[in-house]
Amino acid sequence: MGKKVKTAITPTRNEDYPAWYQEVVKASDMAEHSAVRGCMVIKPWGYTLWENMVSRLDEMFKKTGVKNAYFPLFIPKSYLEKEAEHVEGFAKECAVVTHHKLEQDENGKLVPAGKLAEPLIVRPTSETIIGESMAKWITSYRDLPLLLNQWANVVRWEMRTRLFLRTSEFLWQEGHTAHATEQDARERTMMMLDIYTKFVQDYLAMPVVQGNKTESERFPGAVDTLCIEAMMQDRKALQAGTSHFLGQNFAKGSNIKFQSEDKEEQFVYTTSWGSSTRMIGGVIMTHGDDDGVMMPPKVAPSHVVLIPIIRKPDEKRKIMEYTQSIADALSAKDYAGRRLVVEIDDRDIGGARGWEWIKKGIPVRAEIGPRDMDNDSVFMGRRDKSPQEKESLKREDFINKISDILDDIQNNMYNKAVAFRNENTHEIDEQKEFYEFYTPKDKGIHGGFVHAHWCGSAKCEEKIKKDLSVTIRCIPFSSRTEQGKCICCNSTSSRRALFAKAY
Amino acid sequence: MGKKVKTAITPTRNEDYPAWYQEVVKASDMAEHSAVRGCMVIKPWGYTLWENMVSRLDEMFKKTGVKNAYFPLFIPKSYLEKEAEHVEGFAKECAVVTHHKLEQDENGKLVPAGKLAEPLIVRPTSETIIGESMAKWITSYRDLPLLLNQWANVVRWEMRTRLFLRTSEFLWQEGHTAHATEQDARERTMMMLDIYTKFVQDYLAMPVVQGNKTESERFPGAVDTLCIEAMMQDRKALQAGTSHFLGQNFAKGSNIKFQSEDKEEQFVYTTSWGSSTRMIGGVIMTHGDDDGVMMPPKVAPSHVVLIPIIRKPDEKRKIMEYTQSIADALSAKDYAGRRLVVEIDDRDIGGARGWEWIKKGIPVRAEIGPRDMDNDSVFMGRRDKSPQEKESLKREDFINKISDILDDIQNNMYNKAVAFRNENTHEIDEQKEFYEFYTPKDKGIHGGFVHAHWCGSAKCEEKIKKDLSVTIRCIPFSSRTEQGKCICCNSTSSRRALFAKAY
Repeated sequence: MGKKVKTAITPTRNEDYPAWYQEVVKASDMAEHSAVRGCMVIKPWGYTLWENMVSRLDEMFKKTGVKNAYFPLFIPKSYLEKEAEHVEGFAKECAVVTHHKLEQDENGKLVPAGKLAEPLIVRPTSETIIGESMAKWITSYRDLPLLLNQWANVVRWEMRTRLFLRTSEFLWQEGHTAHATEQDARERTMMMLDIYTKFVQDYLAMPVVQGNKTESERFPGAVDTLCIEAMMQDRKALQAGTSHFLGQNFAKGSNIKFQSEDKEEQFVYTTSWGSSTRMIGGVIMTHGDDDGVMMPPKVAPSHVVLIPIIRKPDEKRKIMEYTQSIADALSAKDYAGRRLVVEIDDRDIGGARGWEWIKKGIPVRAEIGPRDMDNDSVFMGRRDKSPQEKESLKREDFINKISDILDDIQNNMYNKAVAFRNENTHEIDEQKEFYEFYTPKDKGIHGGFVHAHWCGSAKCEEKIKKDLSVTIRCIPFSSRTEQGKCICCNSTSSRRALFAKAY
Repeated sequence: MGKKVKTAITPTRNEDYPAWYQEVVKASDMAEHSAVRGCMVIKPWGYTLWENMVSRLDEMFKKTGVKNAYFPLFIPKSYLEKEAEHVEGFAKECAVVTHHKLEQDENGKLVPAGKLAEPLIVRPTSETIIGESMAKWITSYRDLPLLLNQWANVVRWEMRTRLFLRTSEFLWQEGHTAHATEQDARERTMMMLDIYTKFVQDYLAMPVVQGNKTESERFPGAVDTLCIEAMMQDRKALQAGTSHFLGQNFAKGSNIKFQSEDKEEQFVYTTSWGSSTRMIGGVIMTHGDDDGVMMPPKVAPSHVVLIPIIRKPDEKRKIMEYTQSIADALSAKDYAGRRLVVEIDDRDIGGARGWEWIKKGIPVRAEIGPRDMDNDSVFMGRRDKSPQEKESLKREDFINKISDILDDIQNNMYNKAVAFRNENTHEIDEQKEFYEFYTPKDKGIHGGFVHAHWCGSAKCEEKIKKDLSVTIRCIPFSSRTEQGKCICCNSTSSRRALFAKAY
C-alpha cells in the first residue's frame, strides 16, 4: 500500500481495532448507545439488516418443521434456584424486578412500591420456562418431536458493553426441541448447526469452522456442544452459532416424560440452539474496512442507491425522471429471494452523499448527472472496490446485470474473508512458537487461528488460557486422527484442536 | 335452532360468554397462562397467527416509507418523571427493576443484590425513549419526515388478566413519526388509521367503525385520537387500533426541533399509532362459535388439514401416498400473498382429530378414506359451516378451487360479522330507552352499539359511564350533522356519538 490513503473512518483498523469498531458502527448509522446503561438503540439501518437475517434464518428453521412460540419475559426466581447450573451460568448478572408499581413520595418523586412476594428475573434465556411448558405439553410419543423456537429480547447485565457484541439487552433466537430417541436428537443438533453454517457462509459471507466444544467450554448441562467459529479482521474468533445436544439431562431436570408406543414412560432427549444480534458484530468485523461497513448483498438493508447530481435547477425535473425510471426498473426485480431495495438520495448536500452510503456499506452506488443521462448511462461504484474506482454502465446493462453484480460482490466478500482466514491460520507444533505467536506485537493483533495438538486435559487448556488468553474454540470436525504431542504438556495426542483468542 | 345441539365448547357463548372465551382459547391451543402472574405463553398455533398478522401489517407500514428500529427494554425512572402525563397514564402499574444481580445468602437462597442507583422501568411504551432519539436524530428539514416503528414486548402490571385481552406482558407495535408541517402529520395520522382499518377488515374479517375519540377518551397529550371500534359477539366494543395526532405537544416535551429550509428553528409535528396482540382476542370474539375458534383464511396459521382415515393396516401406504400427493399440489399454491399451508394429521387417534381441528379453527378439513381414494375425491368440511355438513369433492376440483373456497369462507365470516354488528346497532333518542337498552338482562349480553346525540360535555359523558359503564367509543367519521337532543341532558346536539360497553 505504501502511501497513506485518506479514509472515512478514523482510526483505521491497523491503528486501533477496537476504536475503529466503535467508530464504524456509529458512522454506518446502525446503532448507538442509549441512556440506559448497557442497552443499545438499533437504528433503522442496523435493524433492517437484522430483519433480513431473521427472515432468512426463520424460513430455514421452518422448512425443518420448527414452529415459533412466545414465552414470558419474566422468570420466577425459584426457577433459577431449581437448577444449580443456571445459578452458576446466568443468575449472577441479571435484571431483578422487585416491585410492581411506582408511587409519588412526599417530595413528588417516584419511588418503587408494591413489593413482589417473589422477585422476577428478566429472562437471560427462556430455558427453564420452556422446559416447564414442554413437561406439560408432552405426554405421548405422538407429541414428539416437539420443535420450538423463540425470537425475543434477553438481558444479561454487562458492565462493559460493546454495540452488538456485548450489551445488557440483546435480540436472539433460542430453539428447543424434544425427541423420542437419542439419534433423532443428535441428528437435530447437527441439522441446526448446518443451518447456521449455511446461513452464515452463504448469506453473511463469513467462512466458519464447524466443531465440538471441549468439556470446559461446553454449555452447562450439555452432553455435546457444536459450534461455528469465524475469524474477525483482528484475527480473533467469534462464535457465530451453537447447537447443543442435552441428552436426557434437561428432561430430567424439567421432568419431561412421554409414553412410548409400547406404553413405557421415558424421558425425552432434547436439543437447544441459538444465535443473536452478535452476528451483526461479526458481519461488521469480517467485512468492514477503513471506509466503513460493507453489507453482504444477500442481507443488505438496501441494495442500490441512486444519487442524482443536479447542478442547475432547470435540469432537476429531467434528471429526477430518469433516476426514477431506473429505480422503478430495479425495484421490480428480485434478488436472493426478496425484492431489490433501491434508495434515491436527492438531498441537497452534494458529494457528502456518496461517502455516507460508503460508510453505511450499501453494495452498489450509481451517480446520475446530466452527462450520464445524455449517454443513457449511470456512473457506478461498488462497495467491494475502492471508493475512487467507478465505471460508466449503459442503463440497460446496469438494470439487466444488477443481480450478477450483487452476486459478484457477495462472492468477492466471501472469498476475501476465506483468504484472510487461511492466511492467518497455522499448524504449530512447538510450544515456544505457539507462545510467541500469541504474544501481542501490534495493538489489536491477536495472532490468529492455530491448529495444535492437545492431550485432552482440562489442566492444559486452563494453563494456555491463563498464560495467553487463548482458548480452544473447538475440535474441528475436519480434524483428522494424527499422532502428535500436546502443545502444552508434550504428552501424546491424537488430534489437533483449534486455538484462538476470542470475543 | 330450537333443540340443543352438542357443542365442543362448554359453556356456550350464550351460557357464559367470559367463561366461553377462556375455554375457547384453551381448546384452540393458542395460548395459556404461565406460572408468572399475568403473563401468557403464546403457543405455536396462536403465535403463527400473530406472525401472519405482523408480516402483513409490517408490509403495509413499509410501503408508506416506515422503517423499523429497536429501542431499549428499560426506561430510566427519571424519564417517566419528566412527563406528568406518563406518571398518570402508565407509571402506576409497572415492573420495576431495582437490582442487577442475585447472590446466595447464608442459606443458599438467591437474593437480589447490586442495587441500582436509579430504578429502571420495563417499558410500558417506548414513547419517551423514542422521543429522546428523535431529538438527537432530527436537526434539519432534510431529516423529515422521520417514520419509525417498533415491534416489541411491553409490560403493564395487571391484577386481573385475560389471555390476549389483558395481560401484564403483551406484544405490540408502536409507530412514531415526525413531520415538518401540521398537514403532513395529520395526513399520516389518517393514513395509519386507514391501514389498520384495511388490515382488520380485509384480513381479520372484522368490520370496524372509524372515528375520533372524545377529549376525555383521548390519548394523554394527543390533539386528536383516531380509532377503529369493532363489535364482539357479546355486543361489547373492542378498540382494534388507534392513531394519534400529537401536534407539537410531544415535540415540545421531548425538545424535537429542526431547521426549516428558510433556516428557522421549529418544533416538529408528531404522530403515534399502535396495535397489539389484543387484536387476536378480537378475532376470537368476533368469529369464534360454540365449537371453537374460527381463523380468517387470510391470516390462518394453516389453511387446510388432510385427515387420512386408515382402518386396515394394508391400506395405509396407498392412502398416505394419495394424501401426500394432494398436500404437495396444495402446498405449491399461493393464497392471499403467501404459500398455502397444509397439515397432514395421521395420528392414530381416530375421529378426535376432526374435532381438534374444528376447535383450532382451521378453515378447511378434508378426510381421506379408502372410498374417497377410490373415487379420486376428498370429503371436505368448512369451518364456516356446521361440523356435520361435509361434501365430497373430486380431487382436481378441490385443488383447483381451494383459493375460491378460502375466499368464500373469508367473505362469509366478514359478512356474518357485519350483519351481527348491524343487527345490534341502533339509533336511540330517548334517555329511558337508552338506559333500558344497557341494563343487563342476560349474563354476558351488553346491549350493543348505540348512535345517540351528545351535547359534547364531559359531564354527560361521565354520568353515562358512571350509571351504565357505557362509554363514547368515538364520534364516527360517518356521523352527519343533524339536529337533536343530548341523550343525557337533553340540550341541543348537532351530532351523534357511538356508545357501547367496551373491553
